[in-house]
Amino acid sequence: MCGIVAYLGHREACPIILKGLHRLEYRGYDSAGVALLNGDLTVYKKKGKVSDLEAFIAEKNTHANVGMGHTRWATHGEPNDENAHPHYSTSERIAIIHNGIIENYAALKTHLQQQGHVFHSDTDTEVFVNLIEEIQKQNHCSLEEAVRLALHEVVGAYAIVVLSKDAPNQLIAARKGSPMVIGIGEGEFFIASDATPIIEYTNEVVYVNDYEIAVIRDGQLEIRSREDVSQTPYIQKLEMELDSIEKGGYPHFMLKEIFEQPRSILDSMRGRLEIEASHLNMGGIRAYEQKFINAQRIIIVACGTSWHAGLVAEYLIEDLARIPVEVEYASEFRYRNPIITERDIVIAISQSGETADTLAAIELAKSKGATIFGICNVVGSSIARATDAGAYTHAGPEIGVASTKAFTAQVTVLTLLAMIMGQKRGTITDTKLRELMVELETIPAKVTKALELDAQILEIAEEFKDATNFLYLGRGYNFPVALEGALKLKEISYIHAEGYPAAEMKHGPIALIDENMPMVVIATRDSSYEKVVSNIQEVKARKGRIIAIVSEGDTVIPAMAEYVIEVPHTSEVLMPLVSVVPLQLLSYHIAVLRGCNVDQPRNLAKSVTVE
Amino acid sequence: MCGIVAYLGHREACPIILKGLHRLEYRGYDSAGVALLNGDLTVYKKKGKVSDLEAFIAEKNTHANVGMGHTRWATHGEPNDENAHPHYSTSERIAIIHNGIIENYAALKTHLQQQGHVFHSDTDTEVFVNLIEEIQKQNHCSLEEAVRLALHEVVGAYAIVVLSKDAPNQLIAARKGSPMVIGIGEGEFFIASDATPIIEYTNEVVYVNDYEIAVIRDGQLEIRSREDVSQTPYIQKLEMELDSIEKGGYPHFMLKEIFEQPRSILDSMRGRLEIEASHLNMGGIRAYEQKFINAQRIIIVACGTSWHAGLVAEYLIEDLARIPVEVEYASEFRYRNPIITERDIVIAISQSGETADTLAAIELAKSKGATIFGICNVVGSSIARATDAGAYTHAGPEIGVASTKAFTAQVTVLTLLAMIMGQKRGTITDTKLRELMVELETIPAKVTKALELDAQILEIAEEFKDATNFLYLGRGYNFPVALEGALKLKEISYIHAEGYPAAEMKHGPIALIDENMPMVVIATRDSSYEKVVSNIQEVKARKGRIIAIVSEGDTVIPAMAEYVIEVPHTSEVLMPLVSVVPLQLLSYHIAVLRGCNVDQPRNLAKSVTVE
Repeated sequence: MCGIVAYLGHREACPIILKGLHRLEYRGYDSAGVALLNGDLTVYKKKGKVSDLEAFIAEKNTHANVGMGHTRWATHGEPNDENAHPHYSTSERIAIIHNGIIENYAALKTHLQQQGHVFHSDTDTEVFVNLIEEIQKQNHCSLEEAVRLALHEVVGAYAIVVLSKDAPNQLIAARKGSPMVIGIGEGEFFIASDATPIIEYTNEVVYVNDYEIAVIRDGQLEIRSREDVSQTPYIQKLEMELDSIEKGGYPHFMLKEIFEQPRSILDSMRGRLEIEASHLNMGGIRAYEQKFINAQRIIIVACGTSWHAGLVAEYLIEDLARIPVEVEYASEFRYRNPIITERDIVIAISQSGETADTLAAIELAKSKGATIFGICNVVGSSIARATDAGAYTHAGPEIGVASTKAFTAQVTVLTLLAMIMGQKRGTITDTKLRELMVELETIPAKVTKALELDAQILEIAEEFKDATNFLYLGRGYNFPVALEGALKLKEISYIHAEGYPAAEMKHGPIALIDENMPMVVIATRDSSYEKVVSNIQEVKARKGRIIAIVSEGDTVIPAMAEYVIEVPHTSEVLMPLVSVVPLQLLSYHIAVLRGCNVDQPRNLAKSVTVE
Repeated sequence: MCGIVAYLGHREACPIILKGLHRLEYRGYDSAGVALLNGDLTVYKKKGKVSDLEAFIAEKNTHANVGMGHTRWATHGEPNDENAHPHYSTSERIAIIHNGIIENYAALKTHLQQQGHVFHSDTDTEVFVNLIEEIQKQNHCSLEEAVRLALHEVVGAYAIVVLSKDAPNQLIAARKGSPMVIGIGEGEFFIASDATPIIEYTNEVVYVNDYEIAVIRDGQLEIRSREDVSQTPYIQKLEMELDSIEKGGYPHFMLKEIFEQPRSILDSMRGRLEIEASHLNMGGIRAYEQKFINAQRIIIVACGTSWHAGLVAEYLIEDLARIPVEVEYASEFRYRNPIITERDIVIAISQSGETADTLAAIELAKSKGATIFGICNVVGSSIARATDAGAYTHAGPEIGVASTKAFTAQVTVLTLLAMIMGQKRGTITDTKLRELMVELETIPAKVTKALELDAQILEIAEEFKDATNFLYLGRGYNFPVALEGALKLKEISYIHAEGYPAAEMKHGPIALIDENMPMVVIATRDSSYEKVVSNIQEVKARKGRIIAIVSEGDTVIPAMAEYVIEVPHTSEVLMPLVSVVPLQLLSYHIAVLRGCNVDQPRNLAKSVTVE
């Protein structure tokens, strides 16, 4: 992952860079550093968060009008001062920041060591900067040319910015696979991994494309291809409000985002569900309507929480539109020679729209002729740009690393998509469709009601905060919800939690059950309710401690479960949007009670832009 | 689950029943009991294993020529003396043993309590026997008739035997959904959940069908339908050797079965892989060859370990035969209105051939016109009989509750199936097919070599035996192997272990990694090797402890991993057959070192005949 920021202009570079790094900290926060160009080329870097770096440089001379900074999520080498970015070349005349992975770094490193380059870190990045230096030395060429030639030798993904002591008023940047946006101000330029470090200075931006090199020099931005052909930058206007990336009174972004869900779900339906006109509408599919109607198979590719939204969509689309759906881990899909035809539709789901595994899966599916439909939250993101068509989730920026409102927004959009497909294909009756539309409209209010359970859930969290393991069970539409509940707990509390389809318990995992094993069972009143009750009996017979999520008014399960959380009832098809809410709150409270950093859990980063 | 045995004849019933219960203990072992008919109807029952029951009745009078016994796997009510079977009716004139679940027991119980019946246990079974008594009282009818009428009122699954004090020389049995076989000797009869309690007395057996009632009386067996129509019993000859169900010098069945794999894999290929003639052959598909060639989609339904074999098959079939495959949890498949057409093939995988969830999924798929292909180990099992076609795995009886040799046998059969389909469909070249055939023939020898790692694996087990959690990672063909390795550890050592596709780690689970978290990574040399190495780097950077399964001669990973297990190299397609072996041994040794009952892990039963 990693976040990068760079500045060139008339202001002090360092404060702008540090503020930008704070905004990008969701992308990684195990170490951070800055390089400043002020006659000299100075690097300060430190293991830890951006605030640690700030403390470290507080007393140093940071005066400079050109500089760059990096917040890291380790891929090669553990988080420590040496492995932090920026990295110098051996001569210390060039410095680099890098987001991505260089896959052939080992071979390059051996070669460079033979040429006399000395390495101080375990990173692939330090290899990159020395490669540039070596090329420049061998070819007696400009830094820009050396960077360009180096890009032909590295295999992998990168967004880089390079500074050189010998070019005191220049930024060179390049990108392949990792995101990069350039902000254009009045005689000043900003480079960053996303637009958040830029928006308070300018709303004019250029998204750099793969294999492009940007050179900022003499108040000008020039973009050239790796083949050295000049490109015309496409300048876009940003629409983003600063407010939306602040905490708004909540102790954590995650809690803010959980509580935003009634609004974010509504936003993701806005203009799509027209209840009075009894009309459903999704701009993104209009041009591909026939493709959707005639689709032979739908393949959903995604990772993590988005993959769980994909699993919900499998139930939704098969149920309402009667098209076979296969949900794939994007990373596995890519490497297993998947069967895709031109009659297939691939739906790619990603909050950030930058998930590298998902992007790679899209490229593969494209090459086989499938129609690609993207569901992203971040407007203008790489996936949004790489797909044939798509729908934004409009959940607003999600800053908490553990995804919450993005999940419910994805499920909302997928529900609308399944309903539209069912309608077009005639696999759902008008009555049923109308019923679902009416019910869908009530979901924001039902989520609000589920959020009122917060105090009760905090009590349960207090009871279970010291648990070392958890199991989550559900069936049908609630099975992916169980997986998602377990993932949330894992991500932010570091408790080993695992989700299972309830009936699979007896095929192995039930061996784990004893009086110390808490189990969260989602047992809302639906078609598999009776079976889930049997599964609860089996667990209870082995003394497992049961927390049950049930429909309001359930009288059977309260007699069996130790704790019961009653959520508003809704259609089986829409239940994930409601039943996931208490699980989000449960993991949030447990993590806070354990003293974990909820918004920036260890080892994780918000947007996984390496494969 | 539960195991049932009954006897009627000229010998002492009790020793035969107890011996039979020992054989059936793989089906459940949380409590056991017997009922003996000797003028009086006496019930002895006890929480614990069959040996506890034996100790309990050692001094009692057990003389009788008619009797029945039960070994229980709890579904309703915790394991204790009261909930053990057999259960008396309120008058204590009737007794029952039952394997299955009565879903509408709660309503029936309320009604019976109103009629004055008194209940001593929490079981659904006690409701069943009182229902029979009540019906007999109301209708003044025979016991046989009362049983028949009761079957019309219960909803669920059952294999029952009923004894009555008023019919001193009679056994009544009935079945729906749970297995039952009747052995016919010289003037004596045996009833059991499978044939193992019967084979040393007779090889003539009748498999009872759903909704049939068997009455043994006056030296005669009569079978009638629930509608009271007489049925002609189909008497089959059993082919089973007693030796194969004994331990053969190993401390546990599980270890014996792990070490049997070179032979069992060979047995599962026997007659199917004819290397000299360069010919592949599988009797079961011959009549359905065109269906396989033209299949639009293949849906695999299974549970537990068999589900993992199904995931391997997804890679195999998509890779070699280029037909889209969907792998489903049988329990989920059944309840989600799946899309199946007559052009689809459903492959059902089950070691026992009795898995209730899988059987139910087959029935649903059948009703939609799909062709059903079964892969079972137990000959004559319910799934083998319910499918259109199939292939036995021929792994021999598997007694250890944690499945090992059945998994590799399933994968072997699925590999052969994928190769045959690839050949018939022309999606695999002759050269490639020939290469795979030659390589497949070497697998038993390679598994033998992998088994030689036993001593090294024991050392690793000693190092990690006190771990509380484990993660297992793999990509591609080795991803299902990671799931299977984790399941094995869970089942027998009660350590919370979880499998993941390696690249998914960074989308959440990597938050769990710290210096206490052992991680097993399967990183044999295949198409995703480089990527797995990157994933190892990510984990190592967070100080996770790595145990890597690698191909012989790997020089890269030993520099990163704490422990390295080198397995013989083979084709990527066949690797699961080899790479799973060290994982089986690792879980076995860890469980033994922790003092767990390896062959009969807590809460589990071998063959899951309840949904």
